Amino acid sequence: IGWELGNAPDSDLSQMAEDIITLIAAAQQTDGYLDTYFQVAEPEARWTDMDHGHEAYCAGHLIQAAVAFRRSIGDRRLMEVACGFADHMCTIFGPGKRSWAPGHPEVEMALVELYRETGVPRYLELAQFFIDQRGQNKMAGWGPYGPEYHQDHVPIRQANEAAGHAVRQLYLTTGVTDIYMQTGEVALLDALERLWDDIHTSKMYITGGVGSRYDGESFGEPYELPNDQCYCETCAAIGDVMWNWRLLLLTGDGRFADVIERALYNGILSSPALDGKHYFYVNPLMLRGGRYVRLSTNPPEGEQIVGRPEWHEVACCPPNVMRVLSSLAHYFATFNADGITIHQYGSAEIKIEIPEIGLITLRMETDYPWKGKVSMVILQTPDTPWQLRLRQPGWSQSARISINHQPIPVQKDQKGYYSLERRWLPGDQIELDIPLVPVLIESNPRIDATRDCLAIQYGPLVYCLESHDQEEEIDLLDVEIIDNEPLQAEWQPDLLGGIMLVKASGYTGAPQSWGRNLYRSLSTGKEPLRYKIRLTAIPYYAWGNRGLISMRVWIPRARVD
Amino acid sequence: IGWELGNAPDSDLSQMAEDIITLIAAAQQTDGYLDTYFQVAEPEARWTDMDHGHEAYCAGHLIQAAVAFRRSIGDRRLMEVACGFADHMCTIFGPGKRSWAPGHPEVEMALVELYRETGVPRYLELAQFFIDQRGQNKMAGWGPYGPEYHQDHVPIRQANEAAGHAVRQLYLTTGVTDIYMQTGEVALLDALERLWDDIHTSKMYITGGVGSRYDGESFGEPYELPNDQCYCETCAAIGDVMWNWRLLLLTGDGRFADVIERALYNGILSSPALDGKHYFYVNPLMLRGGRYVRLSTNPPEGEQIVGRPEWHEVACCPPNVMRVLSSLAHYFATFNADGITIHQYGSAEIKIEIPEIGLITLRMETDYPWKGKVSMVILQTPDTPWQLRLRQPGWSQSARISINHQPIPVQKDQKGYYSLERRWLPGDQIELDIPLVPVLIESNPRIDATRDCLAIQYGPLVYCLESHDQEEEIDLLDVEIIDNEPLQAEWQPDLLGGIMLVKASGYTGAPQSWGRNLYRSLSTGKEPLRYKIRLTAIPYYAWGNRGLISMRVWIPRARVD
Repeated sequence: IGWELGNAPDSDLSQMAEDIITLIAAAQQTDGYLDTYFQVAEPEARWTDMDHGHEAYCAGHLIQAAVAFRRSIGDRRLMEVACGFADHMCTIFGPGKRSWAPGHPEVEMALVELYRETGVPRYLELAQFFIDQRGQNKMAGWGPYGPEYHQDHVPIRQANEAAGHAVRQLYLTTGVTDIYMQTGEVALLDALERLWDDIHTSKMYITGGVGSRYDGESFGEPYELPNDQCYCETCAAIGDVMWNWRLLLLTGDGRFADVIERALYNGILSSPALDGKHYFYVNPLMLRGGRYVRLSTNPPEGEQIVGRPEWHEVACCPPNVMRVLSSLAHYFATFNADGITIHQYGSAEIKIEIPEIGLITLRMETDYPWKGKVSMVILQTPDTPWQLRLRQPGWSQSARISINHQPIPVQKDQKGYYSLERRWLPGDQIELDIPLVPVLIESNPRIDATRDCLAIQYGPLVYCLESHDQEEEIDLLDVEIIDNEPLQAEWQPDLLGGIMLVKASGYTGAPQSWGRNLYRSLSTGKEPLRYKIRLTAIPYYAWGNRGLISMRVWIPRARVD
Repeated sequence: IGWELGNAPDSDLSQMAEDIITLIAAAQQTDGYLDTYFQVAEPEARWTDMDHGHEAYCAGHLIQAAVAFRRSIGDRRLMEVACGFADHMCTIFGPGKRSWAPGHPEVEMALVELYRETGVPRYLELAQFFIDQRGQNKMAGWGPYGPEYHQDHVPIRQANEAAGHAVRQLYLTTGVTDIYMQTGEVALLDALERLWDDIHTSKMYITGGVGSRYDGESFGEPYELPNDQCYCETCAAIGDVMWNWRLLLLTGDGRFADVIERALYNGILSSPALDGKHYFYVNPLMLRGGRYVRLSTNPPEGEQIVGRPEWHEVACCPPNVMRVLSSLAHYFATFNADGITIHQYGSAEIKIEIPEIGLITLRMETDYPWKGKVSMVILQTPDTPWQLRLRQPGWSQSARISINHQPIPVQKDQKGYYSLERRWLPGDQIELDIPLVPVLIESNPRIDATRDCLAIQYGPLVYCLESHDQEEEIDLLDVEIIDNEPLQAEWQPDLLGGIMLVKASGYTGAPQSWGRNLYRSLSTGKEPLRYKIRLTAIPYYAWGNRGLISMRVWIPRARVD
């Protein structure tokens, strides 16, 4: 609600916030403690269930909400509650007080934000204390996982690989990045770079999803990226966006914006249903159509899930999606003393008062990601020259840029951006045109689960085959895609809210020759009969809105005859 | 111990059995109840934890032990304890008494055996009652799995697919088969055939392992057969052997003996270490060499597993392996009024008094599975003609048979056996010669995890690449196998207890071209540089005896240039 009210006034939402904040403030104990479960059900058990109690986790979300209200509409009432709770934690935890790290990271990034908002050093110090406590191999773990489930198996400065519960790992790295941004401690940045490399070069799905295992909702080994049993919790993809956003702010390197774009358009956008009222917690890349669909941590007893559930027993993902959508504008543009950088493309008005330059207003219009053309017009600008930087998305190789309809020769810099510097005038028109055609994507051969498969991508959108769109009688387990015939993009305004379909040539039929066999001696004879078919792909984010039958992102590549 | 004493006398084992049986008998309550946990720790909780208490499960193993002692050495003392416990259960459960099915099947097959041994109908009736109770969708489940974890989601006669906990499913089908063998109820056989088809045509690993998921130790969807995260609990492969053995007795169809052979030589034999003192609970088909090795349900906290653990918190598998090895002889040969059928090959003396024929003694000598030649000599035979039936193993296509060095033209029957009928004389020599060369195996293309991979098999033995045997610097993630160059078998008497190595031609090197990328637009250029190498494979059962580094059964198939 905090971010949403910053986007546009809404009297109903304002009233709801007013009531909730009043209730929350009244519920806070005089010592600052605030956690309904422990206050109501187990008052004696405050701060005893260190590993799984989630008290600091909830405190973190409260603090982030307070910061959102403060930044977007200047409301300070929730800030007082948040500071009171943070002050309470500062009296309990810290050097010479109680040693502890929260079992689920989250409060660390929130405390750094609270420090940024208030300037009170003890909040930053407590966040630092929490990350320094972690890694003592003491936490309870979960199921077969020991302390690594909580990233408590190794001190952060020595961490080499992403491990344990994926959301915990990413919330931790996000908080550590926040601390590094304030302290500049190189050992933290080194560890963050090692963890970033590990995840983004060996543990990330093409959708930007992360977390390969249901068991422990955890990271797997490098290149362990199963399509059917992947977990890809929505919150993990969101965590990766939050982290990469901080790294982008820190470095200006477009590879972080690429990760953000990949996750936003695919692994996160696949969570909410098109009706905006149902959510996936788990975002698989393949569904075989069996009844063993497990897309929620706790599917209703005995019920077959036919689409996204309305709610989840563990209720982190739905509100997290709402928060991402409400704060989406944050990820689009940044500024520094030289000018404005646009990282993501969408229709928007960007208005920035840059101290060194002055007030700039810029309107961006585009049908991105359906079309690759982005039109910008300068509405307000001071007389000083400034840079407009535009990102070349990682999924593309080239772009044409024109200013006031004159093509401009440009070259992207090492970080993946084009810089346009001049004395701009109101009315100046800038056009960026990124060639946008459907392409086939191949995967690193170390990934077992996608061997000799291809995926379809259209701009930043990863596509999938869903059974609903295929010719009758076609089993998605038996299809192959032909790699040397053109893909065809086709706008469908009435399908799934308006999507670009992509059609491809393929085969079906081969597996019938296997009959009842799972394994056989290598056949040296000719290929079995197969039939040529058209495959119809939809954006991955739109799957599962017409009942869950079968779906696959990675399509086996047809062998050449 | 019961079966082992039947193999050969052993005074230490006899004394141990004597002491244990005395202790067990003394521990039994006057009402027949016997379960140390509940008697000692929770006497009030007898028969209250229906779903997870394992009281009937333990009763089943006790009954099976009693039957073993009775059958192998005629000892009746444990039978009295077993009957007392079974009688106790009969007073509590049954029509008009308490309705219940045990959360973990096992007692069903034991009760049928007890009925066979004693002729007491109530034991068979209780077994029947237990399977009839199952399927009411009432049991607790485990983790994300509801009643299907216990196969309580559907009545057995309506079951169409293997589901839930793999060991529970297979112990259930085994018990149901025992009941069918006594009652002949066709609806049970129909259900068993559906379940058998589902497992053996879509859910079985090449090793005979079953159970695709760690989560719930459960079956997955059809064709969901990941190599790295497969569970393949040793007890599940043993359960499948027990089940297929009953189906073989029932039908005489060699396909059941094929499953038994596949599991015995691979998915079960991989459990014990070569030292006979350490065991795998979980039997994966791929290990990437990361530290996330999970081969036990509960690895020691913070410890890296470097080989098979000595024991497991859930201690079912090690004694189950011991039982299989002690009773291995059971699976080799059967008889009926027409003669003797040999299902598995190994050096053995077979001595059978067939009522309709008389006493037959036959010696079999072979180096199977290293060599395909099996020599048999008749030691004793009555004057009556009788059939010697020999199985053509499913991994082979042909065989040569000679009698007294004269080649005999033979044709296998529809069940996969050769029948040799004559008036045998003592001293008659029969030789079966099955061509035995290493072969490449391909997998059904519906199996995502093995797409475009090949496995090496030598007779019934599935092979694997283990890092120890490869040229230095070779990463098993980066190898490919060449499908049209000969495989070479090489006997190594001093390696891993004596094994046949298989060497193949392959490549390495290609993945380096991927650098840090996980995904990229389909490259249309030529293949990256790759280096030709020799791959050295060992039998899968022998892996993991030299430290756990990396291992793979399925090897990516090299693309043709």
